[in-house]
Amino acid sequence: MQNFIAFNPTKLHFGKDVLSGLAASLPLYGKRVLLLYGKGSIIRTGLYDRVMQILRQAGMEVAEYGGIKPNPIVEDVDAAAALGRKHKADVILAVGGGSVIDSAKIISLTIPVEHSGWDFYSGKAKPVQAVPLVAVLTLAATGTEMNRFAVISNHAEGKKQGYGHALCYPRESFLDPTLTISVPKDHTGYGIADLVAHCLEMYFGAGDASLSDRFITSVVREAMEYGPQLLDNLNDYDLRARIMYAATMALNGLTANGKVSGDWAVHSMGHVLSLLYDTPHGASLTIAYPAWLKYFKEPMRDRIAALGTELFREQLDADATILRLEGFFRQIGCPVRLADINVGPDQQEALVNGFIVNEVNGGNMKMTEEDYPVLVGLM
Amino acid sequence: MQNFIAFNPTKLHFGKDVLSGLAASLPLYGKRVLLLYGKGSIIRTGLYDRVMQILRQAGMEVAEYGGIKPNPIVEDVDAAAALGRKHKADVILAVGGGSVIDSAKIISLTIPVEHSGWDFYSGKAKPVQAVPLVAVLTLAATGTEMNRFAVISNHAEGKKQGYGHALCYPRESFLDPTLTISVPKDHTGYGIADLVAHCLEMYFGAGDASLSDRFITSVVREAMEYGPQLLDNLNDYDLRARIMYAATMALNGLTANGKVSGDWAVHSMGHVLSLLYDTPHGASLTIAYPAWLKYFKEPMRDRIAALGTELFREQLDADATILRLEGFFRQIGCPVRLADINVGPDQQEALVNGFIVNEVNGGNMKMTEEDYPVLVGLM
Repeated sequence: MQNFIAFNPTKLHFGKDVLSGLAASLPLYGKRVLLLYGKGSIIRTGLYDRVMQILRQAGMEVAEYGGIKPNPIVEDVDAAAALGRKHKADVILAVGGGSVIDSAKIISLTIPVEHSGWDFYSGKAKPVQAVPLVAVLTLAATGTEMNRFAVISNHAEGKKQGYGHALCYPRESFLDPTLTISVPKDHTGYGIADLVAHCLEMYFGAGDASLSDRFITSVVREAMEYGPQLLDNLNDYDLRARIMYAATMALNGLTANGKVSGDWAVHSMGHVLSLLYDTPHGASLTIAYPAWLKYFKEPMRDRIAALGTELFREQLDADATILRLEGFFRQIGCPVRLADINVGPDQQEALVNGFIVNEVNGGNMKMTEEDYPVLVGLM
Repeated sequence: MQNFIAFNPTKLHFGKDVLSGLAASLPLYGKRVLLLYGKGSIIRTGLYDRVMQILRQAGMEVAEYGGIKPNPIVEDVDAAAALGRKHKADVILAVGGGSVIDSAKIISLTIPVEHSGWDFYSGKAKPVQAVPLVAVLTLAATGTEMNRFAVISNHAEGKKQGYGHALCYPRESFLDPTLTISVPKDHTGYGIADLVAHCLEMYFGAGDASLSDRFITSVVREAMEYGPQLLDNLNDYDLRARIMYAATMALNGLTANGKVSGDWAVHSMGHVLSLLYDTPHGASLTIAYPAWLKYFKEPMRDRIAALGTELFREQLDADATILRLEGFFRQIGCPVRLADINVGPDQQEALVNGFIVNEVNGGNMKMTEEDYPVLVGLM
């Protein structure tokens, strides 16, 4: 076991009607709030009106920035940060899924400095402080609601990258599974894929941490048991709740304790797919994972087999495990090959080039540019 | 799934040589430290000298209170609180196992008020603030290093009870598994029993929280795999580390999310044994658990069988599960009957009376005084 620090300051409010607690929480940070949201689904569902009512009742002064895209871009981060600076925001309220909350984390770092949010990714800027961030989550997927990570795209540079800092933890996150009931079937499946991929990235990371491995397979088994049931019962509160909680636990630090690092190459590969073809994040991962597992099958043979045996509770070898995982991804409606998203062999060069620009690599299984063509060929 | 708030502010420093970090952490809270420790084992092992050296180098002004007993008593809490008040302590440094850290939590609440520490247990006093608490853990067992609970005995009232409050979380805890290597075999086993019992108390609690159940069985399986190995290799750092981390995760809130409550009747039963016969806490639990499981076997039949099937990875019924758990407790050197600790049938009345005084009951499986004689008879 590797030395580690376990520390997660986010206060998570989970369950039915927890949103009413916003009225007590937000004023703790001040009166001036910057409200962030995405492309309007919160307006259609009535959530926007509900949040505005809570903000009015709490006497908050609101500036709002809507329209943050799935696969969020640095231009929105910088524009929202400028607004927050002008508004002298005491607190940020992010209402949405991973895109909105990830953007909000970088906005919270960007407001206090004269920089673009991308400068944290490029290393040109170091965070000094952050505007307190409160999140209302509407999609079970990324785990951003209880972690320090944020993924942003910079199309000018052809990059989509992750960044993490201790200042990025939301102070509080409000998770009402009811709010995820409006998520359509395909994106519900992508969210399940995302949480499973987070577990696998840590499982295939470096270092020997047996209890973290057990927590990892616990979360994956939860997703494997209730994910398919949920896709057949999209309005079921209890199934929504189990998946939402699993997504939070999949990437809040719990699975990392005692490990040297995760791997995360599959996420880098998936980011390139999202950049080039606007592939939803979860769907990009279910295409990248089978290829990655096949490519590293020899050095990972025992580790893959142990995973399959634990997840499926029968003796499986590496090949059988990869097949079963592919089968699960298909079962939750996710693509597992480039062909499934209509990306043809003519795109191989563009993908390899995207891997090069984004320096695709793993924390455990190392790659060079020479590995990329074969990896892409397996997708 | 029940609504819940997940929040645990303790910063856990885990691994080899993490103690050196004390020098940076303690001054964050002020210069005046109240040092608490137990019955001298930290002096024999040299840990006391090491801590004092760190405190001197950090320029701390130290008042110290040693001699806190296993099964700690309110008299020590009140005397140490008086010393801390006189010293105007900015921070408490508790070095020891559950007894010292539990005492420190109540001392941290007692210093700011004109009360006995027991008044928090009896409801006569409500916490208003707490002196910040930093812990150095020397025994893997109770999980107190990352939770809000404290158990204290009041012999004048014949009570041993638990208390929990959000102000009781240690600000930081330092866990170097090396420090547990001096723990003798019997107490190492009792610690393993304690962490397993914490898991079982939550497993047999009220409410349906599937992922918490998976986390629970993960921790128990970790203890079942590495516990017996550790007892054969008491000097093995890696085994000490796995058990120490498992003990922390067994009772830091992780296993409670989404549940209505734990049960905790077995802990109440064990507390009575400790009060009457000074039975080590872990050993009291391995006597109480088989009796409790047998007593509630009918209403809990499916739940007990599911536990055994998951833990031992073969189809087991409730009876077989209870036998296997007893076998595991014996394997780690723990008593499973009153006879194993030389408490004879003549003590039944005293035990029943202890149950009455301590109002032994469960959060899930309810009891009345009429249940006590049969329960005691099964021990």
